[in-house]
Amino acid sequence: MDIKDLRINEARLRSTLEEMAKIGATSGGGVQRLALSDEDKRARDLFVKWLKEIDCEVTIDEMGNIFGKRHGKNNELSPVMSGSHIDSQPKGGRFDGILGVMGALEVLRTLYENNVVTERPIVIVDWTNEEGSRFVPAMVASGVWAGALDRDWAYDRTDINGKKQGEELERIGYRGPAPARKWPVYAYYEYHIEQGPVLERERKTIGAPKGILCLHWYDIYLEGEANQVGPTPMQGRHDALCSAAEMILKVNEVPGKMGGNMVATVGEIQNYPNSRNIIPDGVHFTVDIRSWNDEQALRAWVSLKRDFQEIANRRGTPMRVEETLRVEHAPFDEKLVQRVLDCAGELGYSSNYMVSGAGHDASYMNQICPTVMIFVPSIGDRSHVEVENTTWEDGRAGADVLLHCLLKTANEK
Amino acid sequence: MDIKDLRINEARLRSTLEEMAKIGATSGGGVQRLALSDEDKRARDLFVKWLKEIDCEVTIDEMGNIFGKRHGKNNELSPVMSGSHIDSQPKGGRFDGILGVMGALEVLRTLYENNVVTERPIVIVDWTNEEGSRFVPAMVASGVWAGALDRDWAYDRTDINGKKQGEELERIGYRGPAPARKWPVYAYYEYHIEQGPVLERERKTIGAPKGILCLHWYDIYLEGEANQVGPTPMQGRHDALCSAAEMILKVNEVPGKMGGNMVATVGEIQNYPNSRNIIPDGVHFTVDIRSWNDEQALRAWVSLKRDFQEIANRRGTPMRVEETLRVEHAPFDEKLVQRVLDCAGELGYSSNYMVSGAGHDASYMNQICPTVMIFVPSIGDRSHVEVENTTWEDGRAGADVLLHCLLKTANEK
Repeated sequence: MDIKDLRINEARLRSTLEEMAKIGATSGGGVQRLALSDEDKRARDLFVKWLKEIDCEVTIDEMGNIFGKRHGKNNELSPVMSGSHIDSQPKGGRFDGILGVMGALEVLRTLYENNVVTERPIVIVDWTNEEGSRFVPAMVASGVWAGALDRDWAYDRTDINGKKQGEELERIGYRGPAPARKWPVYAYYEYHIEQGPVLERERKTIGAPKGILCLHWYDIYLEGEANQVGPTPMQGRHDALCSAAEMILKVNEVPGKMGGNMVATVGEIQNYPNSRNIIPDGVHFTVDIRSWNDEQALRAWVSLKRDFQEIANRRGTPMRVEETLRVEHAPFDEKLVQRVLDCAGELGYSSNYMVSGAGHDASYMNQICPTVMIFVPSIGDRSHVEVENTTWEDGRAGADVLLHCLLKTANEK
Repeated sequence: MDIKDLRINEARLRSTLEEMAKIGATSGGGVQRLALSDEDKRARDLFVKWLKEIDCEVTIDEMGNIFGKRHGKNNELSPVMSGSHIDSQPKGGRFDGILGVMGALEVLRTLYENNVVTERPIVIVDWTNEEGSRFVPAMVASGVWAGALDRDWAYDRTDINGKKQGEELERIGYRGPAPARKWPVYAYYEYHIEQGPVLERERKTIGAPKGILCLHWYDIYLEGEANQVGPTPMQGRHDALCSAAEMILKVNEVPGKMGGNMVATVGEIQNYPNSRNIIPDGVHFTVDIRSWNDEQALRAWVSLKRDFQEIANRRGTPMRVEETLRVEHAPFDEKLVQRVLDCAGELGYSSNYMVSGAGHDASYMNQICPTVMIFVPSIGDRSHVEVENTTWEDGRAGADVLLHCLLKTANEK
């Protein structure tokens, strides 16, 4: 068989994804598989079992990252890597992350059953805690591995119940012996659902993002004065929730003022004491700013911080600000982006040159090796929710593009 | 001893309050004794023990209301009643509610040790769940007793952990045998801290409120569309938290538009899924409106609801509204208000004619018998918080005014 005619097995990819979707399945048809939960452990165990079935060499590192290596003809050459993450959002979907891991597994199964050996080794990876919804920040383990974040700092991150990330790695048996430290990688491919409206709107099957928007996270803490609401006149109140409400609207307005493809969101808020007849005396909320233009994102933050301070002063609710995370925008390797577009064309799929609004482990990988992503459409632009969906045909298309991209790149000497 | 010279025992009142403050004491110097919690039970047990020590006849009704009856010379006459509540806010203070129960107890102890028997019986009462912070609504048990609320509906109210109020009454052993149904009461006095700034500002010791502001509670539910924040453009978002932020500011502005002594507050908010990188798809928040003018409060709500609907339509976040509680403003009995002012004067205390912004069990009692309240100053206008405080001198002053009001009213034939 000519290698050009090689195709992945759609039915097998589908049943693999369906089996994974049972682990942490929610009543709404989604998946809840929070990082380092019991569900994450069960999915990891299954993934490791499947890797061993096709003779991959499995390595677990100190951050719980799982690497499955398939040897090449020349194992002195640096490997090509592909993967994504197994963890999910709370009440998340059946494709986000897992498609990129199971898609790469399907590619290796296809090579295995056809006895195709590439020049370079190919490594599949499952990065720990990409989502950041249990332990902040997101993409922490690829960040540590790439040398951008500190391992012990990552171990110390705690969830809402006070559990530390390092302890939870230990508890589920995935604090491995290998150092979480980068080694030479020839190229990194990450296959993922788009999580946006572009491909569906443009009626394209394959997206080749030119890169990922920058990602800035902030945490705002406001202090008010609690009092019984009935006897406390409006004049002289220090209502932390009213200050937060004004600030939330400022965040919502800032992308319109700045222009471009910026988005800005308040996704999380805690209000204290959160009793209907007490004036709120403490609020914490988050700010998420993304743009292709890092400078513009910083200007938006400077402008917001000035507005926030004015609101806090006027309402008498002192403010504290934490700058939690800053990841620069990541333009991907132009040659690899072109390869994705070319492979899509050769396989007869329409494709689109675009940007990725979501952060991915590819952001950190992009700092250490040529990197690219492959997107397939999200139905109805829904993601991070239980109804997240992608057709099996598009799932197959993306995996076939990944197969041929990996074949080309892994056969480069 | 002339009955006019009778005074309560400040030291005993203080040590009684200090002993009660140990039950549910918080690290910040306050008290957390939520309705029907283990702490509430311990405080109730102690109160019942103290009632029995001065030969009061104790009755527990189906709503857990505790009545302690001291016989008069003529037990055919309807009794005079006085009391308040033992439950507290989460992280509440050491005076709200408990001062009115222990103050009345101190009055009865004073009568007991001086062998003073009044014409009419005197009944002390602890009303269950005045605060409404564990089980909504507030003042539920005086409401049932007065015939304004339904007992089984009250039993069915659930707390945040899904526990029902009726089951929790049973669990702590305070679902008593007596029907929670009003019987003839000659007059009702409720002694309470002001929880507002007026007495302190006016430098008065005793407040005689002409009545309680009306109290309207609403619950607003907004539905948005959850999506990953990065790839979802600002246009076309349906962000439930942004809608809520606009609405919170409308609530904050409405008293200024309506004038008078109206206050309006959003004290509580829940946001879903509350993850920093997901657009909020569900928000619940509360609205609390109070005014001396019931019609004005209704007009404010009509205006708010119109604004809310416009916001919900514009942002594409469907809204559901529940009208949770409406208690009309309660003008107290003019003769009793005058009696409080007169007694304060006779005892040498300055006094002030005012309104009460906070709801009290006196609101429901006012529907069935002549009712009045006695206020003492709240230091620094702080209430429903751990630093809530009142001087022991003012605590004594209020109890002495209560003593002489009760003597006069209970000696009326």
